[in-house]
Amino acid sequence: MAIRNIEWIGDAATGHLRLLDQTRLPGEVTYLDCRDVPTVFDAIRRLSVRGAPAIGIAAAFGCVVGVQGRSDADAALQDASARLAASRPTAVNLFWALERMKQVRPRDAETLLVEARAVHEEDAAMCRRIGEHGLELVRRYAGGERGAVLTHCNAGALATGGIGTATAPMYAAHDEGLPVSVFADETRPLLQGARLTAFELAAAGVDVTLICDDMAAQVMREGRIGMVITGADRIAANGDAANKIGTYNLAVLAKHHGVPFFVAAPSTTFDFDTPDGSKIPIEQRAAEEITEGFGTRTAPVGVKTYSPAFDVTPHELIQAIVTEKGLIEPVDAQRVREVLRG
Amino acid sequence: MAIRNIEWIGDAATGHLRLLDQTRLPGEVTYLDCRDVPTVFDAIRRLSVRGAPAIGIAAAFGCVVGVQGRSDADAALQDASARLAASRPTAVNLFWALERMKQVRPRDAETLLVEARAVHEEDAAMCRRIGEHGLELVRRYAGGERGAVLTHCNAGALATGGIGTATAPMYAAHDEGLPVSVFADETRPLLQGARLTAFELAAAGVDVTLICDDMAAQVMREGRIGMVITGADRIAANGDAANKIGTYNLAVLAKHHGVPFFVAAPSTTFDFDTPDGSKIPIEQRAAEEITEGFGTRTAPVGVKTYSPAFDVTPHELIQAIVTEKGLIEPVDAQRVREVLRG
Repeated sequence: MAIRNIEWIGDAATGHLRLLDQTRLPGEVTYLDCRDVPTVFDAIRRLSVRGAPAIGIAAAFGCVVGVQGRSDADAALQDASARLAASRPTAVNLFWALERMKQVRPRDAETLLVEARAVHEEDAAMCRRIGEHGLELVRRYAGGERGAVLTHCNAGALATGGIGTATAPMYAAHDEGLPVSVFADETRPLLQGARLTAFELAAAGVDVTLICDDMAAQVMREGRIGMVITGADRIAANGDAANKIGTYNLAVLAKHHGVPFFVAAPSTTFDFDTPDGSKIPIEQRAAEEITEGFGTRTAPVGVKTYSPAFDVTPHELIQAIVTEKGLIEPVDAQRVREVLRG
Repeated sequence: MAIRNIEWIGDAATGHLRLLDQTRLPGEVTYLDCRDVPTVFDAIRRLSVRGAPAIGIAAAFGCVVGVQGRSDADAALQDASARLAASRPTAVNLFWALERMKQVRPRDAETLLVEARAVHEEDAAMCRRIGEHGLELVRRYAGGERGAVLTHCNAGALATGGIGTATAPMYAAHDEGLPVSVFADETRPLLQGARLTAFELAAAGVDVTLICDDMAAQVMREGRIGMVITGADRIAANGDAANKIGTYNLAVLAKHHGVPFFVAAPSTTFDFDTPDGSKIPIEQRAAEEITEGFGTRTAPVGVKTYSPAFDVTPHELIQAIVTEKGLIEPVDAQRVREVLRG
């Protein structure tokens, strides 16, 4: 079982939201009990809960906490939602979840909790469907002699309300008892692979091996990798996929070694207004993430850095995109439309 | 000018060896003044001086220190050399340099210093010749619109008695006033690129930009790289080159992006008894280098790791090998023999 990062404890009137504190991973597994809106707000802002779907779910439960014991539930919900909306200003799922909560009638804790649970369960169901569609790829390309599944960054259970996106096929295979093992890139600069992916897979009993990003080519060359699968932050209409820096690196290496490369993402990740990846702007990150990312300075003071936050993998390098609506294979504009809108 | 990592201060009778303390880099530029053999021994053992050629040179000067003021110079030299030989038991250059010092007659500080300076100067001359041969590659493939030079790990001045091997063409180009810039991979797990290469190039005034290893593909895709050049630890008779893990990664990426990939190494790096790279065993490193490489634990306790110390780049991916005897191009067994033995 994947780790439980978001949970409602107790009943609607007196219960509370429990969040895994991801800022303490991988060293400590501690939980934050959120009994008021400021605590939920801080948890989102401090990245105790992270990943677009998980943030939306936490905010939905935050609305329940906000109306508990209040006679003026309408005003309380408005206050809670305005406050939570300011926690991570660019998180689309956050705004979407809060809007949805504001549509609920009557606005009592009981009814709001039903809606928040629905937000959570729908995300979990989406993850499960990605897992089901991805499971056939794992059966075909990984396990035993065929090699392990390699992934990058964390598109995992910790970022969602379920078993993650890129990790969903791994959990599904594990639940089926398939002999599947995983290699996780540590994912510099922020080490989400080491801190989060290796943590959550190991916690669920999945056989996971951590490597540095520059070892992936050698691991492929040794025949240890059967398939690569990553998440995506945004996918253009033609299937070009933007994801954490280092994803494109893996796609090129996979092609060279004849290893199939897959992307797993919900249909909501597709942006039909962006025709191809060249139109996706690439954000630059702060030098300190490279030069003192571990609390220790590892590079000369004042050294110039170049730190793109993500890269774009062209659709030609992606054998299939796994969505909750099925596999997009081959990856091109027509097939994307057929699977998602057909 | 490349940084001065090994220097003899003063005259033979009363002078001493000064070493840049590389364990304090990149935070502090401090020097170790070695006036006795135990101090030289510790400096080598603690990695204050590192890189096979640099260790050999330091040991040669260590022999001078060992006989200063001693009437029993023969016994003193035997003692010094036995002691220093135990500092890094697998360093071939170390044993070679000590053997050479023991051949010197008469065994007084004056004569030994002449020999130690010769060891130092011969290495510096070898680096200069690699720089000269590599300079034509830089002129052809890098600078301005053609893009920067990308390197991995540290095959630099800090590891040699001169301007390094992979870095030699960069320093040579810089000295000529060519508009050459460098990208340096940080080189996980031990970050030699961040700690050493970025440091020494910046200290010499070379325009250097530090990136994480998983960013190299994106940087190439953006057209920023004109050529890649790395060092080598051992090169087989057919030109297959073993080097720091991550080198093969760059070679594959370079091929995909049409960027020429080069290796720079002295002729002594070639092992004619090893027919090809498949015969080179690959050492595994300790998990802690990945999981707590910076004093901070960045991965779950007990997580499985896989950490090959180096990889082998097949000669087909290497456009040329730059040696002090000239360019080996194309890279195959016949051409290797012609250039090195012809």
